[in-house]
Amino acid sequence: MILESYLLGEWRRGGGEGVPIRDPATGEVLARASTEGLPLKEAVAYGREVGGKALLALGFQERGRRLRALAQFLSERKEELYRLYLTTGGTRRDAWYDVDGGIGVLFTYASLARNLPEGNVLPEEEALLLSKDGAFQGRHVLVPKGGVTLQVNAFNFPVWGLLEKFAPAFLAGVPTLAKPATPTAHVAQVLVRLMLDSGLLPEGSLQLLVGGVGDLFEALDHRDSVFFTGSRATAERLARHPAFTERGALFNAEADSINPAILGLRAGEEELKRLAQEIAQELAIKVGQRCTAIRRVFAPKERLGALLEATRAHLEALRLGDPREEGVDLGPLASLEQKEEVLRAVEGLLAAGAQVYWRHGGREDGAFFPPLLLLAEDPAPEALHTLEAFGPVATFMPYGTPEEAAELARRGGGSLVATVATPDPEEARFYLLALGPHVGRLHFLNHRNAHASTGHGSPLPRLLHGGPGRAGGGEELGGVLSLKRHLRRLALQADPHLLQALTGEYAKGAERPAQVHPFRKPYEELEIGETLTTHRRTVTEADIALFSALSWDHFYAHTDEIAARESLFGKRVAHGYFVLSAAAGLFVDPAPGPVLANYGLEGLRFLEPVAAGDTLQAHLTVKAKRPRDEKTGVVEWAVEVKNGEGKTVATYTLLTLVARKVP
Amino acid sequence: MILESYLLGEWRRGGGEGVPIRDPATGEVLARASTEGLPLKEAVAYGREVGGKALLALGFQERGRRLRALAQFLSERKEELYRLYLTTGGTRRDAWYDVDGGIGVLFTYASLARNLPEGNVLPEEEALLLSKDGAFQGRHVLVPKGGVTLQVNAFNFPVWGLLEKFAPAFLAGVPTLAKPATPTAHVAQVLVRLMLDSGLLPEGSLQLLVGGVGDLFEALDHRDSVFFTGSRATAERLARHPAFTERGALFNAEADSINPAILGLRAGEEELKRLAQEIAQELAIKVGQRCTAIRRVFAPKERLGALLEATRAHLEALRLGDPREEGVDLGPLASLEQKEEVLRAVEGLLAAGAQVYWRHGGREDGAFFPPLLLLAEDPAPEALHTLEAFGPVATFMPYGTPEEAAELARRGGGSLVATVATPDPEEARFYLLALGPHVGRLHFLNHRNAHASTGHGSPLPRLLHGGPGRAGGGEELGGVLSLKRHLRRLALQADPHLLQALTGEYAKGAERPAQVHPFRKPYEELEIGETLTTHRRTVTEADIALFSALSWDHFYAHTDEIAARESLFGKRVAHGYFVLSAAAGLFVDPAPGPVLANYGLEGLRFLEPVAAGDTLQAHLTVKAKRPRDEKTGVVEWAVEVKNGEGKTVATYTLLTLVARKVP
Repeated sequence: MILESYLLGEWRRGGGEGVPIRDPATGEVLARASTEGLPLKEAVAYGREVGGKALLALGFQERGRRLRALAQFLSERKEELYRLYLTTGGTRRDAWYDVDGGIGVLFTYASLARNLPEGNVLPEEEALLLSKDGAFQGRHVLVPKGGVTLQVNAFNFPVWGLLEKFAPAFLAGVPTLAKPATPTAHVAQVLVRLMLDSGLLPEGSLQLLVGGVGDLFEALDHRDSVFFTGSRATAERLARHPAFTERGALFNAEADSINPAILGLRAGEEELKRLAQEIAQELAIKVGQRCTAIRRVFAPKERLGALLEATRAHLEALRLGDPREEGVDLGPLASLEQKEEVLRAVEGLLAAGAQVYWRHGGREDGAFFPPLLLLAEDPAPEALHTLEAFGPVATFMPYGTPEEAAELARRGGGSLVATVATPDPEEARFYLLALGPHVGRLHFLNHRNAHASTGHGSPLPRLLHGGPGRAGGGEELGGVLSLKRHLRRLALQADPHLLQALTGEYAKGAERPAQVHPFRKPYEELEIGETLTTHRRTVTEADIALFSALSWDHFYAHTDEIAARESLFGKRVAHGYFVLSAAAGLFVDPAPGPVLANYGLEGLRFLEPVAAGDTLQAHLTVKAKRPRDEKTGVVEWAVEVKNGEGKTVATYTLLTLVARKVP
Repeated sequence: MILESYLLGEWRRGGGEGVPIRDPATGEVLARASTEGLPLKEAVAYGREVGGKALLALGFQERGRRLRALAQFLSERKEELYRLYLTTGGTRRDAWYDVDGGIGVLFTYASLARNLPEGNVLPEEEALLLSKDGAFQGRHVLVPKGGVTLQVNAFNFPVWGLLEKFAPAFLAGVPTLAKPATPTAHVAQVLVRLMLDSGLLPEGSLQLLVGGVGDLFEALDHRDSVFFTGSRATAERLARHPAFTERGALFNAEADSINPAILGLRAGEEELKRLAQEIAQELAIKVGQRCTAIRRVFAPKERLGALLEATRAHLEALRLGDPREEGVDLGPLASLEQKEEVLRAVEGLLAAGAQVYWRHGGREDGAFFPPLLLLAEDPAPEALHTLEAFGPVATFMPYGTPEEAAELARRGGGSLVATVATPDPEEARFYLLALGPHVGRLHFLNHRNAHASTGHGSPLPRLLHGGPGRAGGGEELGGVLSLKRHLRRLALQADPHLLQALTGEYAKGAERPAQVHPFRKPYEELEIGETLTTHRRTVTEADIALFSALSWDHFYAHTDEIAARESLFGKRVAHGYFVLSAAAGLFVDPAPGPVLANYGLEGLRFLEPVAAGDTLQAHLTVKAKRPRDEKTGVVEWAVEVKNGEGKTVATYTLLTLVARKVP
C-alpha cells in the first residue's frame, strides 16, 4: 500500500511499486513509499503562491500563537506517535526524544515569537543616521524569503526531525515541503495528518512528499531553501545542483559527523566516570543511530583502559530486544540495510588497525546489532577518523599531549559536536580555540555540571545544531538564528518617515506631537512616533542634596565640592538616577490609566552632566509595540531628556505594560 | 615587466609572458601580471600557520587599533594612490570613491573593535541556563575560523575592493590572500606595498597574488573562504569547485546585477527630478562600471518621456576625456575588452527591442564609450532583464501597476540594490515585501531625503553589500555582519566556572566574594566574577513619600492607597527608580577612586514589587571589561537587588568608566 503524499491541497498516492517500509524488529512490511507521477515542481509554485500568501497574512505574532496551539494539540495526541514509533525499532525512551523533543521545539519557537513584531518585517539593531540632519537613515531588516523550504529528514527521529525544521520556517512565514526518510515515513505521515487536522496551518503552508524528490529541484531559486539531514555523499551530490550553484537557493546540510570525545589530561576520576557514562548513553540512545553520537574517544594512554572498562560496565547492563517488550533498553537498527552499512564500516575500522575490545552479548539476528567497543592503539590511520559506523560502535584511541588530541579530533574533518571532559579552565581554553573552527557544539563535561548536563548528543532548540566541513556546514535551531535563515536580510535606506512606516518602529525625526497625554491611551490607540514634550524643571542644589540623603548615594561627584572639581565633571553634578527620576516625574500621569507598570528599561546613556541650575525637559515617544496577551501589550518608549541649551543629557528606552481596549 | 606578488614573506615574480596591464586612455602597457610557478597552495598553509597565529596573538582589540593606525598611515599617503588611479581610466572623483572609500572602511571596522573583547572569543547574547540549578549553561560564541580568506577583486575599485574585504577579515583574525583584478593590479600592488611598509600587519596576515589563482583552491577547506567579486559566469564555475561542495569552504560571491530603479506611481515632480539626477550620476561615476549601477529604469508609461528627458539633460553637460586633463567628468572604460563587452550587451538589448533614445556626443575612440540611454517600450523580452552592459548604459521601460513594476524588477533574478522613488508609505510598504526577497539593499528616494542620500550605487561600510540570486548571494560589509562571516559560531555548553573563563564574561553561579570594595580597584585588578554583597536597607513609607516629593513622580501606585489596591501590585509600592537609587546608595563607595563615572545601564528589569517594610540588599559583580584608551576602561557590572526573602526585585547591567593603573 503506497502511503499518500499531501500536495497542492490534496492527499495523493504515488504510482509504481514503491519502496517498502519495514518494522526492523519483525521484518514485516508496513507500507510503501512513492511519489511517482505526483506534481512535485507544481508543489513549489503552490507553496509559494497559496502557502506563502496565507502565511504572510498572519504575521510573526499570529504564527507564533499557532505554533503554541499546535504544540498543545500534538501533546494531547502524542500516545499515537509513541505507539507508532515502536514500529521503527526505537524504544519508548527513543520515542520520548523524538516526540517530546519535537513538541519542545514548537514551544520554543512559539516563545520566541513573543519578541517579534506583528507584521512580517523584522528590524535589526538600531537605525543608522547616514546624514548629519538625519534625513537619510539606514537599517537592516529581515523579511520572509518568499519561496518554499524543502526539508529532507533522516530516518532516526521522524517527529523531531520534521518539527525542528518546520517550526522556524513556519514562524518565519515560509511554507514547508517535508520529505521524511522512507524507513520511518509512516510515522512522519501520521504526524503531518495530525498537524493538518489541527486546523491551525493555513493551506499550502505544509506539504508532504512520501518518496523521492524527482525533478523538484529544478523549480528552486534564490527564494527557496533545502534543509537536508542525511549522508555526506548525498549532501555533496546535492550541493552541486544548479539550484544552488546557479540559481542561489540555500543549501543547509547536516551530514555524517565522526564526533569526538576527549578525556582531558586534567580530568579527575569523577570526569572519567562521567565520560564513560556519557559514551555508553550515546551508544544506547536509538542504538547509536544519532548523527551527534560519540564515534571516537580519545584518552591519555595510561587512562584508556580504565575508560574502556567503565564504559563496558555501563553497556553490559543493557538488554536488547523488541522495543514493545517490557524492560528492553535497545531495539534493532532501523533496517537490514543499515545493519549492513554498520558492518561494512566496522570492517573498515578493523582494517585500519582497530581491535574488538568488547562486544555486548545480546541479540544479533535480523536488524539487531549489540554494542561494540573498538580499541585502536595507533590512532594514525585515516579510516579511524572518517568512517562512520552509524550504530552502537565507538573507537577508543590514546593520545599524548592536548595538541595531539586536538589534531586527532580535527581529523574528523568537521563535526556536529565534541565533548571534552575537564574541570580545568586552561585546558578548556586550549580546546575552545583548537576545536572551535571544527565543531558546531562544544560540550565540556566535569564534576560540576555532569549531574545537570543535557548530554553530548542532544541538540537543544535554543542552541545551534550543525557543524562545519564533513558535518555539512549547516545551521539549524539556535533560537532566532534558524528563524533568520528563512528570512532575507536587506539594508533599507530611507527618510525617517518611510523608515518608521516600514519597520513599525519609531525612527528619529519622524515624531509628531501627541494630542492627548499618551499615558491616557490604551495600547491600540498609541501611534508609533507620537511624542509628549513635557513641562520643565530647574534642578536645584537642594535636589542634589536631598537625593543624596534619600538614596544614601554620597558619591563625591555629587557631594564633595573639592573632589568634584578634580573629577571628570569639574563640579558637583546631579545623580544620574535623579535625572531619570525627575524625567519620570515630568512625564508620568499620576491617575490610574492604561499604563499599568514600568517593568524596565534598555540602553540608558548619560550623555551630559546635569548640575544645579540646569533646566530639564523630557520627550517621550512611542517607539515600538507588541501584543502580550488579550489584556495587555508591551509598549516601548524612546525617552530623551534635554537641558536648557537643548542638549540631550540622557536617553533610554522605557518598557511598559499597557492595557488593551476592553473589547 | 611582471609585477611581483607577495607570498610566504617575500616579493616574488611570476614566470612566463604575463598578461599586459594597459592605461585605457593611452593604450600604453604599464606592467604585466603572472603567478606562474609561484607557491600558491603553500601560501594557504603559510597564511594559516604564520599569519593566523600572529593574528590570534593580537586579539580583537589590538587588531582594531592597528586597523585605525593603518587607515591613518594610508590617509597620509593617498596622493600616490590617487595619481596611480588616473592610469586606470578613472577620474579624480572616481579615485575619491576608491581611495577615500577604502580608507573609510578601515576606520569603520577599527571603530567596531571598541565593542569587542580583548581576546579572540566573541560571545553572543546572554548565556542560557540549561538546568534549574544553573550548573549547566549554554552560550553561542564566535572564534576565528582558523583558515585563510582568498579575496578576488574586480577591476573598478582596486583600493576600496581590497580594503573592504581585508578589514573585516583582519579584525576577525583571519589572514588574507588578496587577488586583485589584472587591469588594475598595479594600483592594488602599490596599496599592498604601502600596507606592508606600515609595519602594522603581522607577517603572513596579508599576501598578494598578481595573476591567476592556479591550483590554490585545492588547498582550501572548511576553515577557509573565498570572497569573490566578478562575473556571474565565473562565480557559477567557482561555486561548483569541491573546495565548496565537498570540503565546506565558504564561497561568498558578488556578481552581475541588473539593478532596477522605479519611479513610483505616487512620486511627485521632485521625485522624478531627483531620480533622473541619480540615474545620470550612476552612469557617470566610473563610467557606469559599478556592479551597483542602475541598469534598468521603470516608470509609469505617461512619465517615462519626462524621466528620459531629465536624465538626458544631466548627462549632456558632462565631458569625456583623459582623466588627467582638467575638467573631464568621464574617462574611458577600463579596457578595449570591456568596451567590446559593453557593445555586445548593447547589441543584445537592441535585438530584444530596445531603441536608442539618446547618445552622448563625446569621444568614441579607443576605450571611450559615451553615455547611452535606451528605451524599450515593450518590457517583456528576457534579455532586457538579464544582459548587463557594464558601462554608461541604462534601459528605460514603462509599467502600469506596482505589481507589474515589481514583477519586472524581479526578472533581474536578484540584485545588489534597487531604488524606488516615492514619498508614500503605502507604496514603500508594497515594494519592501515585493522586492525584499530579491535585493540586498533597497533605497527609497524622495523629496525628504534626496538632498542627504549617499546614492543608489554607494555601498556603505555599516550596511550590507551583496544580493541574492544573480547578484551572487554574498554578504559583505554590514558592520559586524561581515566580521562574523570570518568567525565560526559554535554552541558552548559548560558549567558557569568554565563558561566564565572561556568567554571572559561573568557567568551566573561563578561569582566569588570580593576581598576589597571593587570600586577601590583600578581597571586591571578587577576580576571577572568578583562580587560585592552590600549591607541592607529597610524601605520605609517615608522613603516612598519623600521619593515622590523629590522626583515629582506621583503615580498612583506609589501615592494613592485606594487606587493602588486595584493595581497590579495590590498596594502602594516604591518607585522602581527608588530601588535603583537605593541600590547605588548601598554599593557606591563615596570617596574619589578609580570608578570615574556611571555612564549608563542596560537590561533593567523590575521583577518584584518593593513595598514599605521590605529590606533591600544589592549584589554587584564584575561582568565584563574592555579597554577604552590608555587611561580608562569600560567595566560592566551585573547588579542584582534582592528583598528580605532573597527574591530578586531588580536586575541590570551597570556601565562604568574605570581608571587604569598609572604605568
